[in-house]
Amino acid sequence: MNVAAYLKKKSKQIEKALDSILSAKGAVPQSLAHAMRYAIFAGGKRVRPILVLAACEAVGGDEKKVLPAACAIELIHNYSLVHDDLPCMDDDDLRRGKPTCHVKFGEATALLAGDALLTLAFEVMSGTKLEAVKLLAQAVGGSGMVGGQQVDIDFQGKNKDLPTVQYINTHKTGDLIAVSFRLGAYLGGGTSSQTKPIYEAGKCAGLLFQIVDDILDKEGYASVIGMHEAKIQAQRLRERAKNHLKPLGHKAVALSNIIDFIADRDY
Amino acid sequence: MNVAAYLKKKSKQIEKALDSILSAKGAVPQSLAHAMRYAIFAGGKRVRPILVLAACEAVGGDEKKVLPAACAIELIHNYSLVHDDLPCMDDDDLRRGKPTCHVKFGEATALLAGDALLTLAFEVMSGTKLEAVKLLAQAVGGSGMVGGQQVDIDFQGKNKDLPTVQYINTHKTGDLIAVSFRLGAYLGGGTSSQTKPIYEAGKCAGLLFQIVDDILDKEGYASVIGMHEAKIQAQRLRERAKNHLKPLGHKAVALSNIIDFIADRDY
Repeated sequence: MNVAAYLKKKSKQIEKALDSILSAKGAVPQSLAHAMRYAIFAGGKRVRPILVLAACEAVGGDEKKVLPAACAIELIHNYSLVHDDLPCMDDDDLRRGKPTCHVKFGEATALLAGDALLTLAFEVMSGTKLEAVKLLAQAVGGSGMVGGQQVDIDFQGKNKDLPTVQYINTHKTGDLIAVSFRLGAYLGGGTSSQTKPIYEAGKCAGLLFQIVDDILDKEGYASVIGMHEAKIQAQRLRERAKNHLKPLGHKAVALSNIIDFIADRDY
Repeated sequence: MNVAAYLKKKSKQIEKALDSILSAKGAVPQSLAHAMRYAIFAGGKRVRPILVLAACEAVGGDEKKVLPAACAIELIHNYSLVHDDLPCMDDDDLRRGKPTCHVKFGEATALLAGDALLTLAFEVMSGTKLEAVKLLAQAVGGSGMVGGQQVDIDFQGKNKDLPTVQYINTHKTGDLIAVSFRLGAYLGGGTSSQTKPIYEAGKCAGLLFQIVDDILDKEGYASVIGMHEAKIQAQRLRERAKNHLKPLGHKAVALSNIIDFIADRDY
């Protein structure tokens, strides 16, 4: 399979579904609706929701059953970027080459757009299963993604030791990617002998994603353990992730190829 | 019944449940956990979660079934206060006579504590029903509470006409109170002939709550339609709310008394 073509096709499918979710929210005040749309359609690669679809494929599941969770995860990813970019956090003016949400719409509207996107994610999740609502909330809350952001903030401008960097990578970036694998497999109807290795692969892929980021930016993990060691770690994580998927056979080929795509990206 | 004693008893029960929810989140970084606790235990009256319990009582339901939703609603109420107090929003230094969350912990931590409380609310809701997750998300998202906050921000420092003030009151304050009635009745196992009038009573009570606030602060609704007219409106809403509850008989006495408490409060 051609992974670029797969990603392009699935990305269009996700964007269509996101568009229909945002369009359905008719009663949202216009200023807020614009900011929410701007945050969602700012040109992301949709890696996380595509991982949900690919994990569903890996268990032979019906894509329709996981599409809401895929969209919810993308809504959450983008809410976290909007809040992360705010002046009191990373204070970024540009994201993907465009003005960040608060630069375009003001801080208050960006804050509220983030809140509304997070809430919308759970509204969308109400179309899945209670267990999936729980798994997602745990992955992105105070002991997950938001916890990782907190420790990142706590150590801003300070030297981080390895356990701290590992905590940040595991939670700030890793948990959302890992839960993408997990929900795709779970909501796709996977047996526990399928969902467990897929979730394990997802944990490796989440760490891999952040280490590759750090290698490209020459910071975080790469600056603590050194560039050479970071590249070795990345290679190990890629292999571990793909090994977890082996028992799933050919159905996991897309998921496995996306792991390679994450490992090999150079931007 | 003595409404003050009822509120005190139920408030303790809610605080015990909130404490156990926050204590269970062991893996939350300490700085974040402190800010979350501070926001939740800053001395609120717990009116909304108590309304959930009283609405459950009004349908003869089992309180245990609605306690998670009651706590989730209080988590959401407090997240919204933390975000509302931020410098880019209302920029308040004090709440209930104490430093606001961002004054105490810094803006970034307050932002993340709000995000974590909102997410925790949905984690808690995963212990109820999918329909309840949906109703709550709709009430507090972009077409609900957050939408009301957005319009409030859009018109900050501008003259508001009556429809605008009504929109803000309905959504910013009213939706969370209305959904408290609704979820208490629904998760308490109420029939639709019970839940419908309770939800209608909740909509009236939500508007009543905000109008009483406006009368006490001499602003908002009271400043647009005049103090005299605002008091007449408040009286009408109180009567309408209580009329909706009449068919439910004596089981709704606590709910009805809390509506009087809301109407009569002078702080």
